[in-house]
Amino acid sequence: MKFTFVTLFPNLIEPYLKDSILSRAVESNFISYEFYNPRDFTKNKHKKVDDSMIGGGAGMLLFCQPLFDCLDEIKRKDEDAYIIFPLAAAKPFRQNDAKRLANKKNIVFVSGRYEGIDERVIEKYANEVFSIGEYVLTGGELPSLVMADAISRNVQGVLGNEASLDVESYENNLLEAPSFAKPEKFQNLSVIKEYLKGNHSRICDLKFQMSICKTKYYRPNKEKK
Amino acid sequence: MKFTFVTLFPNLIEPYLKDSILSRAVESNFISYEFYNPRDFTKNKHKKVDDSMIGGGAGMLLFCQPLFDCLDEIKRKDEDAYIIFPLAAAKPFRQNDAKRLANKKNIVFVSGRYEGIDERVIEKYANEVFSIGEYVLTGGELPSLVMADAISRNVQGVLGNEASLDVESYENNLLEAPSFAKPEKFQNLSVIKEYLKGNHSRICDLKFQMSICKTKYYRPNKEKK
Repeated sequence: MKFTFVTLFPNLIEPYLKDSILSRAVESNFISYEFYNPRDFTKNKHKKVDDSMIGGGAGMLLFCQPLFDCLDEIKRKDEDAYIIFPLAAAKPFRQNDAKRLANKKNIVFVSGRYEGIDERVIEKYANEVFSIGEYVLTGGELPSLVMADAISRNVQGVLGNEASLDVESYENNLLEAPSFAKPEKFQNLSVIKEYLKGNHSRICDLKFQMSICKTKYYRPNKEKK
Repeated sequence: MKFTFVTLFPNLIEPYLKDSILSRAVESNFISYEFYNPRDFTKNKHKKVDDSMIGGGAGMLLFCQPLFDCLDEIKRKDEDAYIIFPLAAAKPFRQNDAKRLANKKNIVFVSGRYEGIDERVIEKYANEVFSIGEYVLTGGELPSLVMADAISRNVQGVLGNEASLDVESYENNLLEAPSFAKPEKFQNLSVIKEYLKGNHSRICDLKFQMSICKTKYYRPNKEKK
């Protein structure tokens, strides 16, 4: 699987890819990646990529031409390239999206900067638009990395231990139960007693109950569905 | 304002801080940051920080001792240090949290890796626990950066243009309306006509209506509140 990052600031993305679980996935050829910089596609002599907003508004917007030409080239090389725009105003990215998108061959993340991207770029090229959460960031680079990280974990072979995927938060719409490592007692703080008794079906039951409680507490809207 | 990152992998965080809007904020002394590596606080000769889970379960967990000693030292140096754990099973981080936390003096982000962190560490030290979205990541480093980025933008002086904060998504619980830059027509794609007429109160009205539509479409649960 390949990730193609369209960004003015590859330096905000590449170091993470070189030094995380993704780096091992790259070395093992499960994942590859490529960068495109819209600035390389500008036709004006100052290599300008942003302009003020039509109709007023604070801040600068990435305008059409460099992004159109950049995304056209990506599509020309790979017509199945699947183009995602991380945006504040978009549908929420969730774990089932991470799993679903792990089957794509080439995912292109287009990072906005400044106040955003001319809407016509999104209308013409977006296969999907995602928001990674209800907060505002300085650009699309961190959301691109977040999605690439979440998707990669679901690509066969990337995680050493596939079993660990099954017990994670969101896999069954429940948040994970508390976990403990040795020692059983540390500075007067003890592990939950049932965890120590070795009856795995009872531990499973207890973890399931705690998962339900945690989910109700942290995601009160979920149970209503 | 200071960010303190507790992580086994500072290399996943530092490059972003050196090359983003945060780097300008650091140069201008609005933001500073510091790293602590739990591995430096280990007392075993192999500098081991993780162990298997008590009661069974796939994967490894960060155990208590190195994190306890590390967080004790941070608290000893600054008793007001405000400790946040990015976790999958936690309350959602939202824009109002980003604004609220911009008033803290020293925010400590504790990054988990492997399958997570012994629950006793969280119970003892967490001032807050946050999830940045409903998906699973390989560690707490990206969520720490995401929160640091979102919070920084709300620290006075970090953004050049404070006005741009007001019209952003989530600021009034609405997603942002579409934006356009020059030219008015590009490859047969036109800007919304009203944006070109220069009547700012009508443009504002239209943007407000489009924001409501976009929010209903992408966040169907929001209007029910």
